[in-house]
Amino acid sequence: MLARVSSTPTFKRLPRAVREQQMLDAAVKVFSRQGFHAASMDEIADDAGISKPMVYAYLGTKEELFIACLHRESTRMMEAIAGAAAPDLPADERLWRGLRAFFGFVGAHRDGWAVLYRQARGSQPFAAELAAMRGRLVEVVAGMLDHALRASGREIGATDLEVVAYGLVGASESLADWLADHPEADAGKTATRMMNVAWLGADQLLRGVTWHPPTA
Amino acid sequence: MLARVSSTPTFKRLPRAVREQQMLDAAVKVFSRQGFHAASMDEIADDAGISKPMVYAYLGTKEELFIACLHRESTRMMEAIAGAAAPDLPADERLWRGLRAFFGFVGAHRDGWAVLYRQARGSQPFAAELAAMRGRLVEVVAGMLDHALRASGREIGATDLEVVAYGLVGASESLADWLADHPEADAGKTATRMMNVAWLGADQLLRGVTWHPPTA
Repeated sequence: MLARVSSTPTFKRLPRAVREQQMLDAAVKVFSRQGFHAASMDEIADDAGISKPMVYAYLGTKEELFIACLHRESTRMMEAIAGAAAPDLPADERLWRGLRAFFGFVGAHRDGWAVLYRQARGSQPFAAELAAMRGRLVEVVAGMLDHALRASGREIGATDLEVVAYGLVGASESLADWLADHPEADAGKTATRMMNVAWLGADQLLRGVTWHPPTA
Repeated sequence: MLARVSSTPTFKRLPRAVREQQMLDAAVKVFSRQGFHAASMDEIADDAGISKPMVYAYLGTKEELFIACLHRESTRMMEAIAGAAAPDLPADERLWRGLRAFFGFVGAHRDGWAVLYRQARGSQPFAAELAAMRGRLVEVVAGMLDHALRASGREIGATDLEVVAYGLVGASESLADWLADHPEADAGKTATRMMNVAWLGADQLLRGVTWHPPTA
């Protein structure tokens, strides 16, 4: 083991933060391909070019490593969405920017989406982590809707607001799954399609109305 | 064991079909409360008032029993939706009837929904079964949309149609989760809320338009 450490260039001293990101990159890749149960710590360590004891020392058990992946991917996603916020624009452009950031993130991190959603949503204790993250997303969407409604002098009940936000988040997740399954699909086009569903609704679509991104 | 069989009234001879439904009822209840991994065949047998060897003889291993639950619940759900189909009505009323049937099913079978979606979606091999069922649901919704579009002399590409259908199914699933988590919530009201999301869209909601069920 020591011989390997001294002879492998990837084992040179790196700041802890850099090494942790390498481990998380490797873990997201392996978890998304093998699934949580089949993934082995050996494969993750190999992929990261780091010894297995060091992976355990830095990030703990396989469960803890998976939760660390979940946290990193969900934080990145929330940052991407928050970075697109533009409170002074009209509601449709705000929704469009949020959706474009969300689908842009999923399109650029298909492995991350696989870990984040597909695997975490069905199995304890990850489902609880995911539900908390999803709750924050629902709150953000409900807040946006509430802000836009108040700006036009309207108000709807808290439950109605929450339910509409649940619907929009669910529709976006479903399209994100579709995007992750279609490597040839374009993230921006998927965001435009979602605008047609969420902004226009079936009523306007059936009347031949279509939504197009602003040209600016 | 024999003594118990002869003294317990629930062990009297029943047609196989009736007994299987009893076992599935018990299994759905136990799976939805304990989760697949923690659920024990002993508890399911106890709840059904049937001996454990008989559960194994009729429905196989715990995995096979779970898949039998999935099949029964998803067949019931598809039947409820198909039973609400009314091809000659306007598109909004058709969508409304479909949604009312769907949320009505979830509201009346909250245990079934827990088994069907929450547990199945994250873990192999159940996720594959569920994906197939979801694919059928997406096809039904895409077919409805296509029919309504053609009726008004319009047509959209197959991918656009599929993506819109994914969005609608995802939004409905998300609200079904919400409904399952809120035992006090009304299924019909949830269907009306979903119409406001899916039929009107955020654009019309923000303009103060609201959708109400037909009074008939």
